Amino acid sequence: MTFKIAGVQMDIALMDKAANLAAMENALRETTSTGARLTIFPECAVAGYCFDSLAEAMPYAESIPGESSQFFEKLCRETDSFVIYGTLERVNDKLFNACVLVGPTGVIGSYRKIHLPFLGIDRFTTPGDRPFEVHDLGDIRVGMNICYDGSFPESSRVMALGGADLVVLPTNWPPGSETFPLYVINTRAVENKIYYAAIDRIGVERGFAFIGGSKIVAPNGYDIQFADHTNFEILYGEIDVEKSRNKHIVRIADKHEINRFADRHPQWYDAISDPKTDES
Amino acid sequence: MTFKIAGVQMDIALMDKAANLAAMENALRETTSTGARLTIFPECAVAGYCFDSLAEAMPYAESIPGESSQFFEKLCRETDSFVIYGTLERVNDKLFNACVLVGPTGVIGSYRKIHLPFLGIDRFTTPGDRPFEVHDLGDIRVGMNICYDGSFPESSRVMALGGADLVVLPTNWPPGSETFPLYVINTRAVENKIYYAAIDRIGVERGFAFIGGSKIVAPNGYDIQFADHTNFEILYGEIDVEKSRNKHIVRIADKHEINRFADRHPQWYDAISDPKTDES
Repeated sequence: MTFKIAGVQMDIALMDKAANLAAMENALRETTSTGARLTIFPECAVAGYCFDSLAEAMPYAESIPGESSQFFEKLCRETDSFVIYGTLERVNDKLFNACVLVGPTGVIGSYRKIHLPFLGIDRFTTPGDRPFEVHDLGDIRVGMNICYDGSFPESSRVMALGGADLVVLPTNWPPGSETFPLYVINTRAVENKIYYAAIDRIGVERGFAFIGGSKIVAPNGYDIQFADHTNFEILYGEIDVEKSRNKHIVRIADKHEINRFADRHPQWYDAISDPKTDES
Repeated sequence: MTFKIAGVQMDIALMDKAANLAAMENALRETTSTGARLTIFPECAVAGYCFDSLAEAMPYAESIPGESSQFFEKLCRETDSFVIYGTLERVNDKLFNACVLVGPTGVIGSYRKIHLPFLGIDRFTTPGDRPFEVHDLGDIRVGMNICYDGSFPESSRVMALGGADLVVLPTNWPPGSETFPLYVINTRAVENKIYYAAIDRIGVERGFAFIGGSKIVAPNGYDIQFADHTNFEILYGEIDVEKSRNKHIVRIADKHEINRFADRHPQWYDAISDPKTDES
């Protein structure tokens, strides 16, 4: 019994929520028509990423639950599926780079991006102020990271230890981050023996070209499906929780076995001293 | 001002210490003749890895300092250089899979492998009982991991946070671990912005074929040099501590900057709950 997921590598129109939501609806109808139970969209898919100021972005931000989550709740009910999408969340005068997990009954959870690069809208957002969470969808348990979170092994580790079968990474990878689709994503999957879905965008915003390269990776670190750098593409993967929940790997019984979690020795993982880098 | 390191991908003769030490001496004379200041040998380079029992291995284990470290101390003094090599360490009735850092004045530090796969001699060794350490050689700061430690991001993270410019991984990668030379090593370098030298062995012991693929990786995650899977090869790399100590990366000033350490948010890195895997 597997659980089918889909990731939509798409372009996003800056400041055009209606166009983006319509494009996501079309994609969702396609993914669910093939049996996908969870569809993942990129970071900031609702209104774009390259805002020049907090003031410029604020009118495009929303509350959670809010306008977009209600839009997806209706679609999820109609298609009996789940959605994860990136959006800007407004809380009083603060802006968060967020993603939202919605199902047929409404918002199941949301995540506020913790690790912020000095880039695009993240120059003006507030770092996430809530812990990483694992959400149980019944068939699978899923955790959310966003973009730069993937650089920090702790971001997925904590959710894998918390029982996540799948970590999703809605992202807007910029030029210079080509190592991510090449191998960092695969490492995150293999070191935790989990499924990992990094769903990037394509297209250009204000001269800034995103790099695509979305991928879904299996718990053994191998690519399930991999997108190119410039085209709209829907990726699919089948999640088999037997593979993500059993951390034991037998290569030669009684001669070579490992366990990704039982072999950990957390007593030695505290910093051995304060950071000594000359600049950090 | 850079610091040249060398890694020796070599075969190792099971239970033949004299032959292995002689081969390492030859390699060390070659690396130091080219100006290498630190030469790294594989895991268990002194006496091999595929022992069938603790009793069989014990006669090949040694104390640290001991016979092999004295052998290398003399060579290091003569060549004005440093060496890291893997060996079996005996402490009373316990056996550790260890590596030793030796310089012209003798043993500078040693490390007892913390993460043990159920494989080869590691079926009979005791997990390392001391914390990870960073050793200051004056020109660079170096930390030691061994083989399976590389699977656990915490093993290099803790030493990078402790100021390591370079993490070395003497290893005996078995078949099935091909993902390590392909990309896990690169991830360890890029996520910490450090140099990483994984020095594997080649050859066959008791039917067990090691996979080579040694590599030295730069703080940007790119390979400096990469060995094949079957041949003796000496890899070289130049360590520039400006690159490993400055964790700040400027891609477009005032538009895109990150910092591998300052951007961390450790308050969210504790496990969000007890492990929920069904088997671990």
